[in-house]
Amino acid sequence: MSELKGACIFGQSGGPTSVINASAYGVIATALKNPNITRVLGAEHGIKGVLNDRLFDMGQEDPAELELLKYTPSSALGSCRYKMADPDVDDTDYKRILEIFKKYDVRYFFYNGGNDSMDTCNKISKYMQKVGYDCRVMGVPKTIDNDLFGTDHCPGFASAAKYIATSCMEVYQDARVYDTGMVCIMEIMGRHAGWLAGAAALATAYGAGPDLVYLPEVDFDMDKFLADVDRIYKEKGNCMVAVSEGIHYADGTFVSEAKTSATDGFGHAQLGGLAAHLASVVKEKTGAKVRGIELSLLQRCGAHLASETDIEESVMSGKAAVENAVAGITDKMVGFQCTRDNGKYVCKTELLNLTDVANTEKKVPLEWINKEHNGVEQPFIDYVLPLIQGEPNLPKVDSLPRFAKLKKVLVK
Amino acid sequence: MSELKGACIFGQSGGPTSVINASAYGVIATALKNPNITRVLGAEHGIKGVLNDRLFDMGQEDPAELELLKYTPSSALGSCRYKMADPDVDDTDYKRILEIFKKYDVRYFFYNGGNDSMDTCNKISKYMQKVGYDCRVMGVPKTIDNDLFGTDHCPGFASAAKYIATSCMEVYQDARVYDTGMVCIMEIMGRHAGWLAGAAALATAYGAGPDLVYLPEVDFDMDKFLADVDRIYKEKGNCMVAVSEGIHYADGTFVSEAKTSATDGFGHAQLGGLAAHLASVVKEKTGAKVRGIELSLLQRCGAHLASETDIEESVMSGKAAVENAVAGITDKMVGFQCTRDNGKYVCKTELLNLTDVANTEKKVPLEWINKEHNGVEQPFIDYVLPLIQGEPNLPKVDSLPRFAKLKKVLVK
Repeated sequence: MSELKGACIFGQSGGPTSVINASAYGVIATALKNPNITRVLGAEHGIKGVLNDRLFDMGQEDPAELELLKYTPSSALGSCRYKMADPDVDDTDYKRILEIFKKYDVRYFFYNGGNDSMDTCNKISKYMQKVGYDCRVMGVPKTIDNDLFGTDHCPGFASAAKYIATSCMEVYQDARVYDTGMVCIMEIMGRHAGWLAGAAALATAYGAGPDLVYLPEVDFDMDKFLADVDRIYKEKGNCMVAVSEGIHYADGTFVSEAKTSATDGFGHAQLGGLAAHLASVVKEKTGAKVRGIELSLLQRCGAHLASETDIEESVMSGKAAVENAVAGITDKMVGFQCTRDNGKYVCKTELLNLTDVANTEKKVPLEWINKEHNGVEQPFIDYVLPLIQGEPNLPKVDSLPRFAKLKKVLVK
Repeated sequence: MSELKGACIFGQSGGPTSVINASAYGVIATALKNPNITRVLGAEHGIKGVLNDRLFDMGQEDPAELELLKYTPSSALGSCRYKMADPDVDDTDYKRILEIFKKYDVRYFFYNGGNDSMDTCNKISKYMQKVGYDCRVMGVPKTIDNDLFGTDHCPGFASAAKYIATSCMEVYQDARVYDTGMVCIMEIMGRHAGWLAGAAALATAYGAGPDLVYLPEVDFDMDKFLADVDRIYKEKGNCMVAVSEGIHYADGTFVSEAKTSATDGFGHAQLGGLAAHLASVVKEKTGAKVRGIELSLLQRCGAHLASETDIEESVMSGKAAVENAVAGITDKMVGFQCTRDNGKYVCKTELLNLTDVANTEKKVPLEWINKEHNGVEQPFIDYVLPLIQGEPNLPKVDSLPRFAKLKKVLVK
C-alpha cells in the first residue's frame, strides 16, 4: 500500500474501564512518534467531539502525564453513547465527519470502545471507502463485559475481573464472622454476557468466594435460586451469591426489572437494584440476615486493582492499531489471539474485520456453565486466570492515586 | 506488682475491620513468646466463645499463617455482638466466665473491639476485681468508626478511610465521562460519627473527590441538600456527594429510615438504603442522571488497600496490651497518643481507663465541619492524612490475596 501522511484522531466511547486510558496511551504515544502521522488529535467525548469540532492537540501534553494514563481509570478524553444513523437513511453525521477529517487532513481514525463503538467505527470506515476519502480506520477494543466477537478477550475485562474476585474474597471473610449466619448477594455488571459474574468464581477457586453464581446466558428461576440459597444456608450457616445484573426469567424479563413478586408485593419499581431486590426476597423466604452489595461503578474504575497483564495488553492493542494502520491496514479491529498450553499464557494481537465485530456479542459458552446453572466450570477459571496476573507499580502521592492530569488544549 | 503466670484468652468482637487480625497477631505472637503466659487461647466469636467453652489453642497454629493475619481482613476467630447484662441485675454470664477462667487458669484477658466491646471488657474487669479473681484485663481498640474515646484514633479507621478516599478518586473519574452529566452519591458507614464520610474529603483534597460531604454530627436538611446539589450540578455539569449512613433530620430521624418523602411518595420502606433513597430524591428534583453507590462491607474489609501505618499500629496495640498486662497493668484499653507537629507524625501507645472508654463516643469536632455543614475543614484532612500512609507488601497467590488459614484447634 502507498504511504499515507496526515493527522490522526483518537476517540473513546462507551462505558469506561480501568485500562481504557492505557489503550489511549498506546495509540497516542505510538502515533506521536510516527513520522507519517503529522498531528495527534484527541476527540472530546468520542465521535461527538468530531461532530462538534472539539479536538485536543495531544502533542501539547507532557509526556510524563501521558504515561500516567496507563494507571488512570475511566476515559480521560471523555466518552459518549452515541448511536450513528444508517448512512443510507441519514448521512448528515457522516458528511460532517468527512468535513472535519478534511479540515484537519485526518488520514487515520482510531476508535476505542465496545460493541456499539465498533459499529460506529465500522460505519465510518465504510462511508469513507464509499466516498473515496483515503483514511485508515482501526478499532481498539475495550469493554469490561468481554463480549466483543472474535478476540480471545477484551482489554478492561481482566482488571474488572480481578477487582471482583478480590472484593469477593474480602467480603467472604467479612460476611461470616458472626455465629448467626448471613446470606450475601453480590451484584456484578454484565447485561447480556456473564463473563464478569463468572469471574467471581475465581474467588471460590482460591478458597473464599461465592457458593452460587448466576449468569445471564441461562434463564433464571427464582424458586430454584431460593431453594439453592436455602439449602446452602442451612448446610453451612452462610451463603454467598454472585449474580449478573442481566439475569432474566425464561420470558426474557430482567429480574432487576420485575416490578412485582409474590414476596415483596409492593408493585413498585425497586429503587435499590437487583441485589437489594434479591436480598429482600431471600430474607422473606429464609428469614436469614441478608446483605446485597452492588459493585456498581467501583468494578469498572478500580484501577488500584488493575491487572498488569491487562494494562500491558491494552497498551499493546493501541500500539498495534497505529502500527498496522501506518503499514497500510484499514477497516479492522485489533483483537487478541492467545494460547494457554500447559499453563503457559501467550497473547498476540490479531486483526479482525470491523464488519464481523460490529454488533456481534460473545457470550460465555454454555459448556462452561455448570449443569445446575448456578456456577461455572474449570475451563472458565483456566481461561480467566492468566488475564488477571501481575501487579502494576501504581504511582501515588501521599498514598493516594496520582492520576494523569491532561491539559486538553483544543485545536483552534 | 507481683508476677502472674497463667493462660490468656483473646477475643474479637463487633464489626470486623481490615486490620483487626493485625491486632490479633500482635496479641497472639507476643503472648506466645512470653514465659508468664502459659497458654494462648482464642475465643470463638468473642465472649460467646468463652461462655460456650469454645476456645482455640493458638499455640498449635503455624507461625507463618499467624503472620498472614496482618494482611487478612475480618475477624479470623469470629466475632459477636453480645450485650453483657449489668452484673448487679444478672450475673449468670459473669459466673460462667469466671468458671471458664478458673478451668483454664486464665490470668490474662485481651478483648479486641469498639465501644460495646470495651463495655464488655470493662464489666468483666470490674467483676473479676469484685470477686477477687486475679486476672489482668486489657482492651485492644478496633473500629472503622474511629469513635473510641480518649485515643487519637482507632485501628481499622485508617484503612477504611484509605479505601473510601481511593474509591472516591476512582469513581470521580468514572462519573464524569459523558457530556450529559451525572450526580453520584456515595454512601459511607458511620451511624453516629462522621469520621469515615469525612475521609472522602481526602479525595477532594487530592483533586478528585466529592463536592459535598454530609456528616451525622450535624442535622441534615433535605431542602438545603437538594439546593446544594442543584447548584453544583448546574455550575459544573456533575456533582459528587459523600454521605454518612447516619445522617439524620433535626428531629433525630435517620434519613435512611424516612419512610415517606414528598418526592418519592410511596410510603414504603426503601429497600436500597440511603444512597438509593437520596438518588431517587435528587433525580426527581433535578432531572439529572443519578447513581447511588453504597460502599457497604467493601470499605471495612478492603485489606488490599490497607494502610501500612494502620497495620503496624494495630500490631503495636496488641503487643502493648500483652506487655503491659504482663508488667502488672490491668483494667485499661490501649490507645494512641499522636503528634503531627510540622508534618511529622509520631504515634505512641498510651493506657486509658476502661471505665472512661466504655460507652463514650468520640465524634468529629464541630469546628472541623464547615459552616455550611456540607464539608470538612483542613484540620480534618491534616488529622487523617498521616494515618493512611504506606503500602503493605500483600502476600498473593496468582495475583489474588493469600489470607491466613488457621487450624482453629479446639481445646479439649
